[in-house]
Amino acid sequence: MAKKKGRILTGDRPTGKLHLGHYIGTLQNRAKLQDEYDLFLLVADYHTLTTHPEKEDVIRTRQNALDVVIDNYAAGVDPEKVTHYLQSDVPETAELTLIFSMLNTVPRLQRVPTLKDVMNNLHIEEPSAGLLNYPVLQAADILIVKGNLVPVGKDQASHIEVTRETARRFNQRFGKVFPIPKGMIPEDTPTLIGVDGQAKMSKSLGNAIMLSDSADEVRKKVMSMYTDPNRIHATDPGTVEGNPLFIYHDLFNPDVEQVAEFKERYRQGTIGDVECKKVLVEKLNAFLDPIRERRRFLEERPDDVIDILRAGANRARPIAQDTVAEAREAMGLTSLLTDHVIDLYR
Amino acid sequence: MAKKKGRILTGDRPTGKLHLGHYIGTLQNRAKLQDEYDLFLLVADYHTLTTHPEKEDVIRTRQNALDVVIDNYAAGVDPEKVTHYLQSDVPETAELTLIFSMLNTVPRLQRVPTLKDVMNNLHIEEPSAGLLNYPVLQAADILIVKGNLVPVGKDQASHIEVTRETARRFNQRFGKVFPIPKGMIPEDTPTLIGVDGQAKMSKSLGNAIMLSDSADEVRKKVMSMYTDPNRIHATDPGTVEGNPLFIYHDLFNPDVEQVAEFKERYRQGTIGDVECKKVLVEKLNAFLDPIRERRRFLEERPDDVIDILRAGANRARPIAQDTVAEAREAMGLTSLLTDHVIDLYR
Repeated sequence: MAKKKGRILTGDRPTGKLHLGHYIGTLQNRAKLQDEYDLFLLVADYHTLTTHPEKEDVIRTRQNALDVVIDNYAAGVDPEKVTHYLQSDVPETAELTLIFSMLNTVPRLQRVPTLKDVMNNLHIEEPSAGLLNYPVLQAADILIVKGNLVPVGKDQASHIEVTRETARRFNQRFGKVFPIPKGMIPEDTPTLIGVDGQAKMSKSLGNAIMLSDSADEVRKKVMSMYTDPNRIHATDPGTVEGNPLFIYHDLFNPDVEQVAEFKERYRQGTIGDVECKKVLVEKLNAFLDPIRERRRFLEERPDDVIDILRAGANRARPIAQDTVAEAREAMGLTSLLTDHVIDLYR
Repeated sequence: MAKKKGRILTGDRPTGKLHLGHYIGTLQNRAKLQDEYDLFLLVADYHTLTTHPEKEDVIRTRQNALDVVIDNYAAGVDPEKVTHYLQSDVPETAELTLIFSMLNTVPRLQRVPTLKDVMNNLHIEEPSAGLLNYPVLQAADILIVKGNLVPVGKDQASHIEVTRETARRFNQRFGKVFPIPKGMIPEDTPTLIGVDGQAKMSKSLGNAIMLSDSADEVRKKVMSMYTDPNRIHATDPGTVEGNPLFIYHDLFNPDVEQVAEFKERYRQGTIGDVECKKVLVEKLNAFLDPIRERRRFLEERPDDVIDILRAGANRARPIAQDTVAEAREAMGLTSLLTDHVIDLYR
């Protein structure tokens, strides 16, 4: 393996099947990063408990985890190139979380803007201690494998800040154990608008095209896509800017000249929505076909997918165990059970 | 071993050597409980981090832990009868804490009265997330060994309440895994007043007689003990009630008739403070002599003490591992690494 430029830690909540917004926002980027970086991918099942601590949520997590993982591979992530694992298969993360929770104050964590966002979006009136501590758990996820790079959307910059503060504070108090990770704000990752034109694509808003949608589902969603509301007839001049139809054409129609021509004609009122949509359906399905095929292949082999996650955990866990042992050594939190703290974990 | 009446979980923070207040408040009670109950004793080193997360504090923890343990045995706790271990030698506690942190809200934990007390006493303006979560960590300590009885001082009743709520909530959501522990408010355990007569005995207030104090140190502390401030001469009638001199005589002078006589004469003004104090010195030293002897014996054998804690951890840890695995099974938080969650920990 060629020398890698650094270790990236990133991951997904096991929320189930992914959509085009995920592809644009993260998956296509991972497929690029995996060659140059040592890419660790986490399926964050403990995190699910911060907002959904009911049994049915936990049970659902397993199938959701598989769906998320399959969509990653279907979209170009190469299981041979990444270390992909379930968060709870590295339970040592909990101990690092406990230690880090001593280094972060409650008011500091209450000021993390995503806490309020999550509470508003999910109508949570009183956050659990686990939800408050969410960025600390995330810091433990990143630092336990000594990740030094973390891809983040703009809205998550505040989380990586908690990770950086925690690493700095630990190193200053106890000795240098952790890297100070840098956030990577990836280029060319627009937030994909939903087919309703109203907001970011999101399964729960019902405005998403799933990577697993059939050709027919894609057709239905595109044909009823929100476009320019002021355009009544195909002969009315239309607006291209901010119009989902053309945002999607720009992203998924590789025929650049065709897209330019459609835009020009749309502005002049010489092409109808329906024609543009029909072509988009074609292009989207052409784009999704190989993804669907890989998806189907993996769906029929859940044991192979589990084997991949098992191999990932088997790689990540010894790293995590070494890190916790190293952190405890640095703190002086050695063991009476054993001369070498690491033996507590192996 | 005869059948025990239940499993008690209790413990000490590793704050160093213990004093007569600890003896009266907890140690003598443990020496009684160990015959009838399955007594688990914890040295809570993670807890130290909630208020003292600096390296020097952690380092000091090790010697302090040994001192606490030695004082327990010197005062009558029998290492053969109890399971005594260092909290951090059971790191699985951290995972149960993480899970339980999802079942307790921030406002609920902010209302625990001891949080404000600790913050006031230690001048902590902004609590760490770990300090807020302290009662949750305590719940994990208790429930991970399925303790069903917890001796508590009156000021700690609020902690056991968090443990009971957590166990109930977990069982209700995920299935019955945990006992609902009961607090035991032990009889005959007055809070011992300090030698200054001002407050509860406390090393940090400098008003404590340590179990490890020499005969001479005891003499000095008793001879300068606060008594009845309104009594100037030995011939003044004195007040017995609330007078530390007689509180101590009641507790440590086994010659009941002598104590009754001293009280009578003190009230009448026919005995001086000095005479009462001299006798108290004698009785206290007689009481402390066997404790000092056991203490010296153990101090010279730190490896034996460590062996005891090692044996305790070796007993407690598999129980803890079973409990975490059982909790995860109940939640559906199984492992992809292994068919049996317990294999994650062994």
